[in-house]
Amino acid sequence: MLTITKKRIKIPPPLLISGSFLLLILIGTILLKLPIATTEPISWTDAIFVATSATTVTGLSVFDPGTVLTAFGEAVLLVLIQFGGIGLMTFAVAVLIMFRKKIGFQNRLYLREAFSQNTVGGIIKLAKSIIIFAFIVEAIGITILTFYWMPEYGFSKALHLSIFHVISAFNNAGFSLFPDNLIGVQDQPFALFLLSSLFIVGGIGFTVVLDLYQHKSFQRWSLHTKLMVSGTILINLAATIMVLVLEYNNKATIGAMSLGNKISAAYFTAVTPRTAGFNVVDYSVMEDPTLLLTMILMFIGGGSASTASGIKLTTFIVVVLSTLAFLRSQREPEIFGRSIRMEITIRSLAITTISILTVWIFIFLLTISESLPFLPLAFEVVSAFGTVGLSMGVTGQLSDLGELILSVLMFIGRIGPLTLFFLLLKPKKENFRYPYDQVFTG
Amino acid sequence: MLTITKKRIKIPPPLLISGSFLLLILIGTILLKLPIATTEPISWTDAIFVATSATTVTGLSVFDPGTVLTAFGEAVLLVLIQFGGIGLMTFAVAVLIMFRKKIGFQNRLYLREAFSQNTVGGIIKLAKSIIIFAFIVEAIGITILTFYWMPEYGFSKALHLSIFHVISAFNNAGFSLFPDNLIGVQDQPFALFLLSSLFIVGGIGFTVVLDLYQHKSFQRWSLHTKLMVSGTILINLAATIMVLVLEYNNKATIGAMSLGNKISAAYFTAVTPRTAGFNVVDYSVMEDPTLLLTMILMFIGGGSASTASGIKLTTFIVVVLSTLAFLRSQREPEIFGRSIRMEITIRSLAITTISILTVWIFIFLLTISESLPFLPLAFEVVSAFGTVGLSMGVTGQLSDLGELILSVLMFIGRIGPLTLFFLLLKPKKENFRYPYDQVFTG
Ligand SMILES: [K+]
Ligand SMILES: [K+]
Repeated sequence: MLTITKKRIKIPPPLLISGSFLLLILIGTILLKLPIATTEPISWTDAIFVATSATTVTGLSVFDPGTVLTAFGEAVLLVLIQFGGIGLMTFAVAVLIMFRKKIGFQNRLYLREAFSQNTVGGIIKLAKSIIIFAFIVEAIGITILTFYWMPEYGFSKALHLSIFHVISAFNNAGFSLFPDNLIGVQDQPFALFLLSSLFIVGGIGFTVVLDLYQHKSFQRWSLHTKLMVSGTILINLAATIMVLVLEYNNKATIGAMSLGNKISAAYFTAVTPRTAGFNVVDYSVMEDPTLLLTMILMFIGGGSASTASGIKLTTFIVVVLSTLAFLRSQREPEIFGRSIRMEITIRSLAITTISILTVWIFIFLLTISESLPFLPLAFEVVSAFGTVGLSMGVTGQLSDLGELILSVLMFIGRIGPLTLFFLLLKPKKENFRYPYDQVFTG
Repeated sequence: MLTITKKRIKIPPPLLISGSFLLLILIGTILLKLPIATTEPISWTDAIFVATSATTVTGLSVFDPGTVLTAFGEAVLLVLIQFGGIGLMTFAVAVLIMFRKKIGFQNRLYLREAFSQNTVGGIIKLAKSIIIFAFIVEAIGITILTFYWMPEYGFSKALHLSIFHVISAFNNAGFSLFPDNLIGVQDQPFALFLLSSLFIVGGIGFTVVLDLYQHKSFQRWSLHTKLMVSGTILINLAATIMVLVLEYNNKATIGAMSLGNKISAAYFTAVTPRTAGFNVVDYSVMEDPTLLLTMILMFIGGGSASTASGIKLTTFIVVVLSTLAFLRSQREPEIFGRSIRMEITIRSLAITTISILTVWIFIFLLTISESLPFLPLAFEVVSAFGTVGLSMGVTGQLSDLGELILSVLMFIGRIGPLTLFFLLLKPKKENFRYPYDQVFTG
């Protein structure tokens, strides 16, 4: 297991990231429990739940943040979101470099420079460039949204709302100050487009953004960037059409809207599950097939080394490509004139397997701890795992035990189940190999 | 793609098995639709559904076989079950040999002899030995059960019931002549033990039975046999304990029974989902976590080359072992002093991926075609995929479209989704390999 530097710090990356997150959650819990943070007293369990939800940029909440949190409480929430979102993104990019994974020739040159020889100084330099990027994107977002909302709310309120929602969007947190999340703005296509663009940029991954910034033509992008961009467009387009068709006549969601607003709301509903978590419709009255679609999108999630979670879009693409390759008797999948190594296939399949198992175990636990219907519980679990924050409306009805179970899941979902298992399992030294033997499968 | 013999028949095995099954279903549908087959007229959709359910040894039924079928109808059902169960088992063992997969040294010697040089004569010889094995096991089962039920029903009725239930059990079909399946015999531990032993023997796979017959010591078994036997014992034991704990106080299932009957019914309820499908409790009043456990057991299924379906127990074991090996930075999983090849891992993961995808798509389709609650529909889909036949009671309420959708799924579940995809996708010739490139996952 690699260490941060060979000289100074000797903490394995999985332990470092898990430890930092736990510390942040602990501090957040204490701050949110302070009387000055809330307008009414909240329980320790609720404080743990919301601090975890903010730090893991999930967005599930057992109370309405807009009414329960004071200005101080709001500030705590935003700081947790920023640290949790950008913090992990920075960390993930750093780990990518430390593990010396190839990041495409051009990106590597840039990142090597930014990182300069695996020292703490290098990490700080890299973190700076990510923070500057985040700051610029958020500043642009806040400026535009403030101007857009000013006529309705006046400057001060518009700025306040914009700061909160832009930071929440860019970090894929999905928290909102409005009591019904973004249902009240479902008829503002511009605001929906702006916020969704922010969480897509935040959720696509820093290496992809860098590649897009440096190279204007598809041909010169790295394979990872090509997969992320084409995959994002394809999955968003397909999901938008499916949501539009499935909910077209559902009066309780988009059925009563004008065609323009229908398309805008369907687009937002299609892109928000991976893993922004804002909602413009009420998920408790959505059609079952749309809920099922939303659950698979929440499970897939966004890009690697981003503010998003889930198994990641590239993991899903590699699993699909590898399975197709297997069915066509190809050894390794090929796409865009490149082959994908067997190790990446195995890694992707392992991530998917562990994630499915994790989701299954937590649904199982929640059906034991809660006496609520199955689908809302399963939906809540997938949402927590993908740190999405969408809910069919049962978050507030959870038992204390249920809240703690979901808090653990949000934590696992954000650091990634792989990180957790790497912590728990010791690598095995292979001194010799046993002879092969046949096992029949399928 | 290999062919049955190099000289005479030139049909690829996946096409041959799919074609035979479709033909059998077609004949079965026509026979069941005949006025002499039923005591009341049934629709074509119902005839298709039940013929498919019998041929694929699923056991789901849109009517009560005990009252609706005449003696002729019952005979048709039994013939479909026997052909569908033992037929596919024979075929699968033949394919294993034709594809020249290693089946362990001792088994290979026997099977090579039985099969003698890949000729049609060899297949017939092999089929004969499987049919003789099935006949002996069924004859023993029928004899014992007839004697056991004789005091209650008299000889003629006891024989009639025994023939039907033993054939249904050995072939993992799960059809019953009792209106409430086996709920009426839930207080007969001996009958439950006998029937469950029959479907476990039928569902463990012919190569395993052969290995057990030839070698009395664990050390001399093939790796496949070791995995199947230890895996079966482990999963049955764990599932029994879980069912017992989860349902212990559920008065609607086992809560009101004596401790002995509780254990007996919990054992039966734990082993029947993989993939026998008899039920001794009412699944519509089961606890949600137990239903979730049942669904994962139905998905896993029985042994390769057996009368059972599902992804198969060995596939599941290989997926778990491979994932653990990956997490411990091992290249290939090891167990019982043997390594498992990377290709077997990839194959297992591909089967699991396709199966999850298939189940997901069919739940999605059924939530569109039906207006029934989510969990019973999801349960019905997993049951059809694993050709299990357990139901939360919605089979009779399905629309015609829903019945046809499930019929297609039972067919896919029995021939295996891999077989279907091998039919649909052409193998790609690899003349050159593209250069590798990096993709970040997870
Ligand atoms: K979120
Ligand atoms: K069955």
